[in-house]
Amino acid sequence: MQSYIDSLSLIDHHCHGVVTRPLDRPAFEALMSEGHKPVAGCTQFDKPLGAVLLRWCAPVLGLPPHAEPEDYVATRLKLAPDEVTRRLVGSTGVSNLLIDTGHRSDAILTPEGMTHATGLDAREVVRIEAIMEEVARLGPADGAALRKGFDARLEERAKGAVGLKSIVAYRTTFDIDQTPPGVAEVDRAGDAWLKALADGSSRRLEDPVLIRHALFRAGELCRTHRYPLQLHVGFGDADILMPKCDPTVFTPFIAQMEKWDVPITLLHCYPFLREAAFLAEVFANVYVDIGVIQNFTGPSAPRVLAEIMELTPFYKQLYSSDAFGLAELHFLGARVFRNALASVLHDWITRGEITVKKAESIARAIASENARRIYPV
Amino acid sequence: MQSYIDSLSLIDHHCHGVVTRPLDRPAFEALMSEGHKPVAGCTQFDKPLGAVLLRWCAPVLGLPPHAEPEDYVATRLKLAPDEVTRRLVGSTGVSNLLIDTGHRSDAILTPEGMTHATGLDAREVVRIEAIMEEVARLGPADGAALRKGFDARLEERAKGAVGLKSIVAYRTTFDIDQTPPGVAEVDRAGDAWLKALADGSSRRLEDPVLIRHALFRAGELCRTHRYPLQLHVGFGDADILMPKCDPTVFTPFIAQMEKWDVPITLLHCYPFLREAAFLAEVFANVYVDIGVIQNFTGPSAPRVLAEIMELTPFYKQLYSSDAFGLAELHFLGARVFRNALASVLHDWITRGEITVKKAESIARAIASENARRIYPV
Amino acid sequence: MQSYIDSLSLIDHHCHGVVTRPLDRPAFEALMSEGHKPVAGCTQFDKPLGAVLLRWCAPVLGLPPHAEPEDYVATRLKLAPDEVTRRLVGSTGVSNLLIDTGHRSDAILTPEGMTHATGLDAREVVRIEAIMEEVARLGPADGAALRKGFDARLEERAKGAVGLKSIVAYRTTFDIDQTPPGVAEVDRAGDAWLKALADGSSRRLEDPVLIRHALFRAGELCRTHRYPLQLHVGFGDADILMPKCDPTVFTPFIAQMEKWDVPITLLHCYPFLREAAFLAEVFANVYVDIGVIQNFTGPSAPRVLAEIMELTPFYKQLYSSDAFGLAELHFLGARVFRNALASVLHDWITRGEITVKKAESIARAIASENARRIYPV
Repeated sequence: MQSYIDSLSLIDHHCHGVVTRPLDRPAFEALMSEGHKPVAGCTQFDKPLGAVLLRWCAPVLGLPPHAEPEDYVATRLKLAPDEVTRRLVGSTGVSNLLIDTGHRSDAILTPEGMTHATGLDAREVVRIEAIMEEVARLGPADGAALRKGFDARLEERAKGAVGLKSIVAYRTTFDIDQTPPGVAEVDRAGDAWLKALADGSSRRLEDPVLIRHALFRAGELCRTHRYPLQLHVGFGDADILMPKCDPTVFTPFIAQMEKWDVPITLLHCYPFLREAAFLAEVFANVYVDIGVIQNFTGPSAPRVLAEIMELTPFYKQLYSSDAFGLAELHFLGARVFRNALASVLHDWITRGEITVKKAESIARAIASENARRIYPV
Repeated sequence: MQSYIDSLSLIDHHCHGVVTRPLDRPAFEALMSEGHKPVAGCTQFDKPLGAVLLRWCAPVLGLPPHAEPEDYVATRLKLAPDEVTRRLVGSTGVSNLLIDTGHRSDAILTPEGMTHATGLDAREVVRIEAIMEEVARLGPADGAALRKGFDARLEERAKGAVGLKSIVAYRTTFDIDQTPPGVAEVDRAGDAWLKALADGSSRRLEDPVLIRHALFRAGELCRTHRYPLQLHVGFGDADILMPKCDPTVFTPFIAQMEKWDVPITLLHCYPFLREAAFLAEVFANVYVDIGVIQNFTGPSAPRVLAEIMELTPFYKQLYSSDAFGLAELHFLGARVFRNALASVLHDWITRGEITVKKAESIARAIASENARRIYPV
Repeated sequence: MQSYIDSLSLIDHHCHGVVTRPLDRPAFEALMSEGHKPVAGCTQFDKPLGAVLLRWCAPVLGLPPHAEPEDYVATRLKLAPDEVTRRLVGSTGVSNLLIDTGHRSDAILTPEGMTHATGLDAREVVRIEAIMEEVARLGPADGAALRKGFDARLEERAKGAVGLKSIVAYRTTFDIDQTPPGVAEVDRAGDAWLKALADGSSRRLEDPVLIRHALFRAGELCRTHRYPLQLHVGFGDADILMPKCDPTVFTPFIAQMEKWDVPITLLHCYPFLREAAFLAEVFANVYVDIGVIQNFTGPSAPRVLAEIMELTPFYKQLYSSDAFGLAELHFLGARVFRNALASVLHDWITRGEITVKKAESIARAIASENARRIYPV
């Protein structure tokens, strides 16, 4: 099973660009964590992600597996950043990168830059909250101008994209009114937010009315373009309010998108793996991946993947790395996923629950076929 | 361990009747899902339940294991529905079916019908919300008449039953006032609901006051008859509000039932397996099963069973299939449960944690002895 | 790996004293449960904790493994209680006991008593709610006197301690205002609580304002003494409101303590293992253990430990037994932990994810080095 899965092309339906500057050890470690504060006397290499990084990435840079952190970082620094990217991202066996361009996009490569650096096909997924913030920074006269500017810009950007994405879970949690707001309500909320931006009391989009407007506008565009709306779920930055990022809290919105035939792809899903799988089972439009948590759980990724695969229909699961910044995260995403999937399917075959042929068809579906069915790639 | 467990009779303490009409592929697949909308180009056979269904049920119909879906459905259609039921339900090794008659009972066999079709002892578990809805359909003059009609009918039906059941989690979630309502309050709520039924704004019982009345009335009857009140937990239809279906949200009601010595049997429990096991550990009256989720997780049922068995006292766990409609779900419920239980206990024996003798006593307890202690079978 | 881990000294950073009276079977079984009501015809030995107790503790008392419960209790009764304590607690390989003295401290040995009975170094962790209750029992004139008395006594007791502990999750849940209350507000809350104590309407500290005061006062003292504040999480008595004991609900307080560089050690964490691990990953000051749940899950402890180790940085995990009352729980805590840790690390080594050398360093960190870094032991 391992060699079959190793031979499959992957579509990475949710990832980010890599940084192109040389990274010393503090800079490298900062990109290994969702936290913001290092612990004195400790290192980010001393955690599950560190373990698999040293095991699997070291040989790609010419070191033995399980190299020491200092050797790894020193060797990496000696290579040109482009060479690091080429080696690590170029050897993942990924055919298509679907790149979320809405997070710290000034620090990382664009989709075009990623294609240039790796030779891989790279397409854009547009983050709707980032679009609203871009338009706000242009200084619209009032809430109505903000709304019209957002609608126009999102419509324009959606044309070249392969999907849209929302991080509503980060900004308001999923525990919000899930009906579309009226225009007057949106414009009033826009007025208030623009004022808060001007006086410095707001720095980012967190208003639920504006986000609801963005979500339903995004839903309409996804319906038109027949591609998915991605939703960030669970694991992420320290300032998340986790219990209300359970995707089942967003059931009313998901049900509305099912009526519109808009695929909803739930990203990461940790620790709400079973909740996400349940939604994939009962809603025709829900898809799931375990994204970023594969790398962060490293040696334990097989048990995490086994859990999302308990209930998820085989035609509803996707691959993503959610790699951000480090080329290593692209490489590991694919490596850890292939190993974990081989482990789960091997176990099912060994116990006689499925045939090898069926296992291969499941692997193909998750590796790329499901993504190809719902994304225009 | 497997052969010992295969030899044990089971009490299926929570299941439903089977449909008796011939099932073409769309009808068959519709009964394989809790969702309501098929996905174009995909099949319900392409998920964990489908995998174990084709593996284990195909041979019962004379096909090789892992038959193709089209062959399976075609072969099944060639057999008389009674023959399908007889073969599949008749070979489960179940001695007693405790049947919930409150869900789509017009479409499936009654307990008597199930006994006739399979030769198994079948007894009734009465769903309290269904009784309230039945009485409402008889056209009571007002809320007081509804209440009196419900009390009388439930008392009557409880006499022939082996337990009562509530789906409060579906209808209001567990997040409700958990004290018994006063009579005047109940009657006012009944007035309002009857009016809503009459004008079409309500189609089913969702009023928390009426459901609380029904719950406490049920508790009193269970206390009198010394049998359990079953509670649906977690996994189910798409319209459930999952986070508030966590059974620990219902702790105050459970504690009240503990005072009355009424066993509460928590059904399915997915994804709240550990929460349910916790309640079984700390409350003398709480019992758990993993019911429907065994079939839906199929190849992964051993890891789901292993999780509920982490903490649950051995004298607090029960077997159920929660089969509805398809005879296959009865067959698989028993098969998957036996395999999963053998797997968990074999692992414990291998690691020296328990003796074979102890494992056998645990298996007997879960298979039937615990149910026999609390249900009048 | 097993023999290496068996050779390591442990710091048990969260435990309680043992009872010193002889225990007949009902008294012994009562200490095996967090519930309060036995089930007729059933025994606490017939659950996961019972299985590992009979397997591992019986030989320490001179019986074969897997002895019968009646033989175990009878043999134990024949030995002097001190001898039972000496044999069981003395053979754990624990070097330091950090003892929470705030729970039923009249029934169990003090830290000095534990040192006397076992020869182990035993230090105190002070439970802040118990201090507030002690001061209230001294009859302060009003809320202001209560506050001043609490502040003085906690400051005094903190000097001799190695950490402080809060059971806020039990008393108010984590779902409270997480800002420090003003003095006037605290004094008014104190007035009200003292009155409630006097008229018998309150028996323990449950007022959120007073608890918030205690938490922030504790935080300041932990900051001064540079030692941790322990937080009870999840699994515990029957009267807990579980969904609001999710530690991510306490994120704002945890973030505030991160600013103060106060380590927060999350205890038990079941069923919120992944939520706790997430906090340990993203907050520099968060540490986790699985404490009491190791013994209660017994044969399944390896899968519980595997889950907390999915994401937790290796420098953020601690060992504790949370043993209370029974010397067996001290013995089992260490035994079950060593076995589970060996199992998880062996699996990682076998799959090539880490080297033996790395596994040994992870084991040392969790066994004692992490505790030694944050506690003054």
